Amino acid sequence: MIEFNRPWEDADVTLFRQNVSRFMQEELEPGDEAARQQGHVGHAIWRKAGELGLLCTDIPDEYGGGGGDIRHEAVIGEELYRRSLTGMNIAVHSIVAHYLLNHGTSAQKQRWLSRMAQGELVGAIAMTEPGAGSDLQGVRLRATRDGDHYLLNGTKTFISNGFLAGLVLVVARTDVQAGAKGISIFAVETEGLAGYRVGRVLDKIGMKAQDTSELFFDDVRVPADCLLGGQEGKGFYQLMSDLSFERLLIGVNSLAMMEGAYEATLKYVRERQAFGKAIAEFQNTRFKLAEMATQIRVGRAFIDQCIELQLRGELDATTASMAKLWASEALGRCVDECVQLFGGYGYMNEYLIGRMYVDTRIQRIYGGTSEIMKEVIARAM
Amino acid sequence: MIEFNRPWEDADVTLFRQNVSRFMQEELEPGDEAARQQGHVGHAIWRKAGELGLLCTDIPDEYGGGGGDIRHEAVIGEELYRRSLTGMNIAVHSIVAHYLLNHGTSAQKQRWLSRMAQGELVGAIAMTEPGAGSDLQGVRLRATRDGDHYLLNGTKTFISNGFLAGLVLVVARTDVQAGAKGISIFAVETEGLAGYRVGRVLDKIGMKAQDTSELFFDDVRVPADCLLGGQEGKGFYQLMSDLSFERLLIGVNSLAMMEGAYEATLKYVRERQAFGKAIAEFQNTRFKLAEMATQIRVGRAFIDQCIELQLRGELDATTASMAKLWASEALGRCVDECVQLFGGYGYMNEYLIGRMYVDTRIQRIYGGTSEIMKEVIARAM
Amino acid sequence: MIEFNRPWEDADVTLFRQNVSRFMQEELEPGDEAARQQGHVGHAIWRKAGELGLLCTDIPDEYGGGGGDIRHEAVIGEELYRRSLTGMNIAVHSIVAHYLLNHGTSAQKQRWLSRMAQGELVGAIAMTEPGAGSDLQGVRLRATRDGDHYLLNGTKTFISNGFLAGLVLVVARTDVQAGAKGISIFAVETEGLAGYRVGRVLDKIGMKAQDTSELFFDDVRVPADCLLGGQEGKGFYQLMSDLSFERLLIGVNSLAMMEGAYEATLKYVRERQAFGKAIAEFQNTRFKLAEMATQIRVGRAFIDQCIELQLRGELDATTASMAKLWASEALGRCVDECVQLFGGYGYMNEYLIGRMYVDTRIQRIYGGTSEIMKEVIARAM
Amino acid sequence: MIEFNRPWEDADVTLFRQNVSRFMQEELEPGDEAARQQGHVGHAIWRKAGELGLLCTDIPDEYGGGGGDIRHEAVIGEELYRRSLTGMNIAVHSIVAHYLLNHGTSAQKQRWLSRMAQGELVGAIAMTEPGAGSDLQGVRLRATRDGDHYLLNGTKTFISNGFLAGLVLVVARTDVQAGAKGISIFAVETEGLAGYRVGRVLDKIGMKAQDTSELFFDDVRVPADCLLGGQEGKGFYQLMSDLSFERLLIGVNSLAMMEGAYEATLKYVRERQAFGKAIAEFQNTRFKLAEMATQIRVGRAFIDQCIELQLRGELDATTASMAKLWASEALGRCVDECVQLFGGYGYMNEYLIGRMYVDTRIQRIYGGTSEIMKEVIARAM
Repeated sequence: MIEFNRPWEDADVTLFRQNVSRFMQEELEPGDEAARQQGHVGHAIWRKAGELGLLCTDIPDEYGGGGGDIRHEAVIGEELYRRSLTGMNIAVHSIVAHYLLNHGTSAQKQRWLSRMAQGELVGAIAMTEPGAGSDLQGVRLRATRDGDHYLLNGTKTFISNGFLAGLVLVVARTDVQAGAKGISIFAVETEGLAGYRVGRVLDKIGMKAQDTSELFFDDVRVPADCLLGGQEGKGFYQLMSDLSFERLLIGVNSLAMMEGAYEATLKYVRERQAFGKAIAEFQNTRFKLAEMATQIRVGRAFIDQCIELQLRGELDATTASMAKLWASEALGRCVDECVQLFGGYGYMNEYLIGRMYVDTRIQRIYGGTSEIMKEVIARAM
Repeated sequence: MIEFNRPWEDADVTLFRQNVSRFMQEELEPGDEAARQQGHVGHAIWRKAGELGLLCTDIPDEYGGGGGDIRHEAVIGEELYRRSLTGMNIAVHSIVAHYLLNHGTSAQKQRWLSRMAQGELVGAIAMTEPGAGSDLQGVRLRATRDGDHYLLNGTKTFISNGFLAGLVLVVARTDVQAGAKGISIFAVETEGLAGYRVGRVLDKIGMKAQDTSELFFDDVRVPADCLLGGQEGKGFYQLMSDLSFERLLIGVNSLAMMEGAYEATLKYVRERQAFGKAIAEFQNTRFKLAEMATQIRVGRAFIDQCIELQLRGELDATTASMAKLWASEALGRCVDECVQLFGGYGYMNEYLIGRMYVDTRIQRIYGGTSEIMKEVIARAM
Repeated sequence: MIEFNRPWEDADVTLFRQNVSRFMQEELEPGDEAARQQGHVGHAIWRKAGELGLLCTDIPDEYGGGGGDIRHEAVIGEELYRRSLTGMNIAVHSIVAHYLLNHGTSAQKQRWLSRMAQGELVGAIAMTEPGAGSDLQGVRLRATRDGDHYLLNGTKTFISNGFLAGLVLVVARTDVQAGAKGISIFAVETEGLAGYRVGRVLDKIGMKAQDTSELFFDDVRVPADCLLGGQEGKGFYQLMSDLSFERLLIGVNSLAMMEGAYEATLKYVRERQAFGKAIAEFQNTRFKLAEMATQIRVGRAFIDQCIELQLRGELDATTASMAKLWASEALGRCVDECVQLFGGYGYMNEYLIGRMYVDTRIQRIYGGTSEIMKEVIARAM
Repeated sequence: MIEFNRPWEDADVTLFRQNVSRFMQEELEPGDEAARQQGHVGHAIWRKAGELGLLCTDIPDEYGGGGGDIRHEAVIGEELYRRSLTGMNIAVHSIVAHYLLNHGTSAQKQRWLSRMAQGELVGAIAMTEPGAGSDLQGVRLRATRDGDHYLLNGTKTFISNGFLAGLVLVVARTDVQAGAKGISIFAVETEGLAGYRVGRVLDKIGMKAQDTSELFFDDVRVPADCLLGGQEGKGFYQLMSDLSFERLLIGVNSLAMMEGAYEATLKYVRERQAFGKAIAEFQNTRFKLAEMATQIRVGRAFIDQCIELQLRGELDATTASMAKLWASEALGRCVDECVQLFGGYGYMNEYLIGRMYVDTRIQRIYGGTSEIMKEVIARAM
């Protein structure tokens, strides 16, 4: 059994973990199969999560948040990912809240943060465009000033939470000449918004319950006070500001999924017989599990250290990139080997390990691919 | 571009390949998405394949087969797998035909082979049982003699072609005392068969168009002349007889899928830009592709040699196991790296590479896992 | 540059590290090439190390030791291994001292510990026998009671420090019937010892400066008070008692060598040109170095944690085995890739990286092979 | 046991192999340890090899060669490398002969080829310079015309056969302006040559019996008719002409060494006991050996195919690079795992596997590193 004696986990956080865990088991897990079928989890579960205080946990009380910190966000990520409950992208929701908190005007914070904390508004970030990857140079969605409004025109894709999103941070180009300094972010409420259209929920190979979508903006008219922070050209800088959080969290989630995969596999190989003995008794099985347990133990020391650094505000971009790179790569190998130990059952969606196999492949890609992480790390050398 | 200058491919086989290729492109590929949605390809396409002479190609003319050999079967496998068209499990269909041809009574051959060649009867082999893996010791489905009939009772799972199958070879226990010698095979026509029930099409993580199913036998009454070869206790020996064919074909298919993945990826990285240049120009991309091309080239020499050995009747079990082991493992690594080069697009079912990623995971498992292959190889040392 | 901001390193330990580092640079390194030629470092350097307080650092003052702890031993290991100065096996020397301290009689401690701390007696442990590996069942060297003496007969091999050893702990069989309980340890002073013979210094592929030797015992007569702890049959238990220390230290040393290899390689690829630019500018080089830096960073968090656990007496056998397994395996891959980045120069003994390549191969073998570590870890699952 | 049923091996070649094998066992192997000590094999063994017809086997009879082809060269490489007899670099000797045959003037062929075939002149190629790698742009050794002579000035390093060489092909710059077209090759007889000096035999980590050396040219005066082919500026083209041969041969040698390592390891694990049974009975051992056997079998198909292509003059540069890349990389992994199965004995020079471990590391570096091979392959895509 995995033990949760995280060095950063005090009694309050442990209590919080119990609440989160109960929510996962009682509220989220029962609906997971249906969510996978329909391609999203629906609004009700987001509101329920809001009621229970599981959203915006690290946003100050004054804005309706939980008043917590990275530890609460990490606990949520861990409890989701060790069960491969990948339908609600709470990380993206939190990042939207962070942008508002750190860069928004006072009015923007007042207007949106508490509604996000309640799960009334689901948050999304619309950055990637068709054919442009995670490369900011590729942003072509145009925001044109028109009196006290802006007109948005363009298309976004791969938008996590896109179908359910009530508040979308749209990365737009306000100045076509200015390169990175021509990028701005608009906070856009989607309800009843003319010219805004959510395309289909993308047909991914995994993360079936998550509503990754295309978004179309056709002369969408938004008030000028939707410009994040109230100033044009700050988008690039704003986007950079939360990368360490995002990368750390993918690291945290990846390691938690490894732990969940290991635990499920250990249980399986003990029960399952082949050639007259439990699979767990074969030397190959034992060695594979020992290697996994070692990876997890080593990674745990590192990820816990990163969480503590982040808690103290000392996590640098390079180390965060290492957390994402190392854990997502280790996860890929780990789950692949777990599937092999499950044999044919590992190929079935009804088994946790099967769902993990397809869910996990995106971890090495989103939030910056492994190759991008290596570039970031190499630059710091 | 992949060139098809296989050393074993003469002008006739090349002509045959063109026909197969046309069938894939014009008949099978257009319906693939729908088949993936519904979980099977339907009967019509099997009949169409039969009409075009693409079924039972290596069965003699006198039984309605194509009168060809392993080369024709290899061509079909290659053309299917380089497109990840995994809905029709023609390999299993062929293996059923091989069992009939090699072990069936004269009446059995007459009765079923030509209907299989026409695609009227889809073939399946019902071996694996819930909780028992590919381990023959685990066969518990009971066949009890009752006059000139047998009564079949038990459950099978992971049965490829199970939903569409008109003719199922059921691996049953006719003698509970006799171990391997208590295993017999029954050829069972499923249409209107009382007590026979096809369970749900299993919800796999990939190979979505293939109807892998559970089969239930509840006092199913079959005439004694359905016993393959007419003699009890031969099942184990019969099942062993075609293993080299099956393993070789998985090797052939795996290598063809590597070629298809490589080709699609090469095309993609040349078109796709990042940071102002084609992805194909990054050294990391170039090195990954060079490694893949090398693996493919090396594997091609070996697989072609295996096909030639099989054609001469000289392919031993060890070498066939090496073909399966090596190619399926190489395929797994190759497709994983292709997905990475595709980035987010590689995670989408609409891209060939995304479908390959999920389709390919079973290659290291079915037809004997990589671990079983290693056992087979080690035993021969 | 590697920074030494170990969390367990206070000002005293840092001062100690500076002394150690100075000794390495000024005393040990200059003679390393000669030591590699002759196969041992000679006695003088051991005495020098003793004078400077670098031996038995974690043995209490009262026995002439340094009165320090695992941190001092770790610092010595790190400073040796990041320079690939593998001639003095100080770890084995320390383990001998630990055995005396923890299991020796009061007289034994008084008699030997301070002479070991002064470098007057070099310590060795004679466990492995020809053809028997690290398997205790294989101990055949016989100790027969003869009045108030024992007669030792048998052969040992792979004995680190064997040529220079003044005090050898000989693992012997005192009871041929009793299995593990028939094993006892004798502390044997080698000077002028009749019947004792040091065979050749073994011709290893690396660790050329370390005197790994065969030892022959031919009716060697030792007083009964040389029996460690004064009681027969405790040898197995005594040997088990320090495994965590040994394994942790190999982990510590392996990680330090990775850091040294990385640092040397980073320097090299920046200076060295190919095709008109520094090797460091090629994407392949950058990615390899980023991967190494990540491995080192992750491993560092874990190893530091292990040192802190050991300091508190809480390091369990499983975690210690993980430290050895993970770090020695990571080291093997790391140094192999460093050699590749050095090209032909990496194949030369005159380059640190070349010496590391050969020195490092034994880390996955001695102190329990990687396979033994996996067994240990698997047993705890 | 490895079987030598190479498809390209007819009765004559088999007879030749027997002679080669006898020479290795009776002449070369007995002196190998002494050669490793002194750093070269001496001249006598080269003359002996010449007498037995083992040098210049693919050079026409008319020039005193063996009149054979690539198969004879492959047999020599295989018989050397499966025994890790890496002292005589016959491949380089052959390449020197190829250059003379293919690019030399008639007088040059007459003058040197038969003496090379007799082993009177050992051949070497002096290309690499200190700090310049295998990059031709780095050639700075200057050849200045001076009447009917040239003056050579500069330094070469990493020169295989450098200490024993009687005929050195010196890659020199005849025109400092002309880039690749300013490179020329001089065939230089070293005996009594004023200004020519062989530096020390380099202290490599492996290949101890091979005399890899530095060469110094200080106003070395050579007659103009030593210019290979009689024309300046052809050096680059001449050097390129034999790359496929060189790369193929490294591939051939690497695979043969894998076979030798596998055979030695299989024998060892069957004899050697641990924990009361032969190491060969552990599943981990069995799986490792099965993986190796599979790699060897797959590689064998490919390498044999390459030899046949070369025999027909159809081996292209890309495929030759794949042969080198794949086989040398596979060899590295294979020997590393063999060492692990040998445990401590694998770390000893007295065991074949230990010598292989150090000998093998250069295979991924010389004749073009793995990275260069990938560049070559990528360029062809």
